[in-house]
Amino acid sequence: MTFLANMDRERGEFLQARFKEVLPDIQVVLGDEPYDKSSIRYMLTWMVPEDIATAYPNLQAVFSLGAGVDQFTEAGLPPYASLVRIIDDDLTSMMQEYVTMTVLALHRDLPGYIDQQARHVWQKISVPPPARNRRIGMMGLGELGQGALRALAPFGFPLSGWSRNPKRIEGVTTFHGPEGLEPFLDQTDILVCLLPLTDETRGILNRNLFERLPPDAALVHVGRGQQLDHQALIGALDAGRLRAAVIDVTEPEPLPSGHPFWSDPRIILTPHIGCITRIEAFIDNIADNVRRHCEGKALRGVVDLRRGY
Amino acid sequence: MTFLANMDRERGEFLQARFKEVLPDIQVVLGDEPYDKSSIRYMLTWMVPEDIATAYPNLQAVFSLGAGVDQFTEAGLPPYASLVRIIDDDLTSMMQEYVTMTVLALHRDLPGYIDQQARHVWQKISVPPPARNRRIGMMGLGELGQGALRALAPFGFPLSGWSRNPKRIEGVTTFHGPEGLEPFLDQTDILVCLLPLTDETRGILNRNLFERLPPDAALVHVGRGQQLDHQALIGALDAGRLRAAVIDVTEPEPLPSGHPFWSDPRIILTPHIGCITRIEAFIDNIADNVRRHCEGKALRGVVDLRRGY
Repeated sequence: MTFLANMDRERGEFLQARFKEVLPDIQVVLGDEPYDKSSIRYMLTWMVPEDIATAYPNLQAVFSLGAGVDQFTEAGLPPYASLVRIIDDDLTSMMQEYVTMTVLALHRDLPGYIDQQARHVWQKISVPPPARNRRIGMMGLGELGQGALRALAPFGFPLSGWSRNPKRIEGVTTFHGPEGLEPFLDQTDILVCLLPLTDETRGILNRNLFERLPPDAALVHVGRGQQLDHQALIGALDAGRLRAAVIDVTEPEPLPSGHPFWSDPRIILTPHIGCITRIEAFIDNIADNVRRHCEGKALRGVVDLRRGY
Repeated sequence: MTFLANMDRERGEFLQARFKEVLPDIQVVLGDEPYDKSSIRYMLTWMVPEDIATAYPNLQAVFSLGAGVDQFTEAGLPPYASLVRIIDDDLTSMMQEYVTMTVLALHRDLPGYIDQQARHVWQKISVPPPARNRRIGMMGLGELGQGALRALAPFGFPLSGWSRNPKRIEGVTTFHGPEGLEPFLDQTDILVCLLPLTDETRGILNRNLFERLPPDAALVHVGRGQQLDHQALIGALDAGRLRAAVIDVTEPEPLPSGHPFWSDPRIILTPHIGCITRIEAFIDNIADNVRRHCEGKALRGVVDLRRGY
């Protein structure tokens, strides 16, 4: 029973050492060493090997190294292997921190104050409304989206959410499906995108969407790079439809040098750090799942490949 | 019965209109118009008139236009007048938002990411520890300090606080007095200063204090400008004692052009916007207090002038 750890060497060796302690029957090989593909039963990877559908006859589970799984649904796994998404409390906490930080930053004019600091200007930008008058709208109501809403609730923001299928969440006004999108946007002052990447969500943050938002709206984009039309964002900022944005994901990543986002004073740009996988918690989570599978129990976090999440 | 509103004209006229509705027996005069000083029973002001001790024989209460009161304790009020500090939920909420935003910003390396954006660098700075391993220490455990700790609690940070006198707060390890300061600092990764300005707290954020903090500590200063030794902050950043700071208050304000804080990539500087008084809530709070006083009840928020808060 072999586990292929297709990750940077430092973290791979960390995993190897940890598995030796907690799962001594499993052999761990690293992706940059030679190995026998037919021996691989479990694979942890971010990139999908091109020959995954044919060269790994004993593959039973592929663990996604990150919160998103779109690259796997596009590549096509062999039918006998499950795709497992990592859900752990650690990622939820990370996202709660990031979304709370950035929503408060947009609520309290932080992009403008950062720009003023660069220009040596000491001046109050606005008197922000009380939180009860600043409506937060979350796109994507999975584990991370719901977690972020729970973190925002104590501040008193009115909360709403939009998802593909109907959801009921206490304290959150929910909307769903294509027909629910416009009414959702109409009542959203700070929009947070935490959607998975699917055919329906690719390019969803576009000009039409921005035009439905109330005046002086703002955006936190922490979903997937391909969901955002960069031109449309700049256009919405220039037209005053949006007053500011925090962008954590782009297409491509890293964002090319010279791209207008880098130097736009209305944009705070972070390099895909909304959720950073902490290696210890992450490895123990995978080890626990592999142990379950070895004991004949169902894997946790198996992705429905037809829906894409 | 006359109320002197010593504030900018726009807000003064707003107060005048509101008082006419809710307290029609009180005459409101604005500070930039001529008025009879001997008629003034209530005064709302930020600056203290030089002749306050002698020229206002009927003064009964002075309302402080802002959260701090140090300028009044220094100037000396006539003994027959009370000094009233504004405490309202609105200010507490504002401070909860600001402190949560900035503590999360320091926890998640936002000053570094803002600097990287300015240099067009896309790179993860660190894997932040889980919140349970990032210890927050609050200096000042009044209404605002305790409110800020309540807002931070759900994220899972270990919380501690330091105050002049002993306090018991659920979920918070408390320290007090000069002998409690070093043990408090020893276990503080992110220090938040929300102290009032007194003789004991002037210059308290100095070199000795920064040297007691653990390596890679960080600072949010949202107390009073005169509490921070600017040279000591720069020195602590240069020496790697502190990794970053968010500064909302300075001495003097505005911070002079050319001051090193403006362009230090380790510092986020905001122009004293931690608490911004929202005029509606503020005026209704004062009107309510004036009404209580007219009805012979005790004023709320009277400051003990000997302690200075």
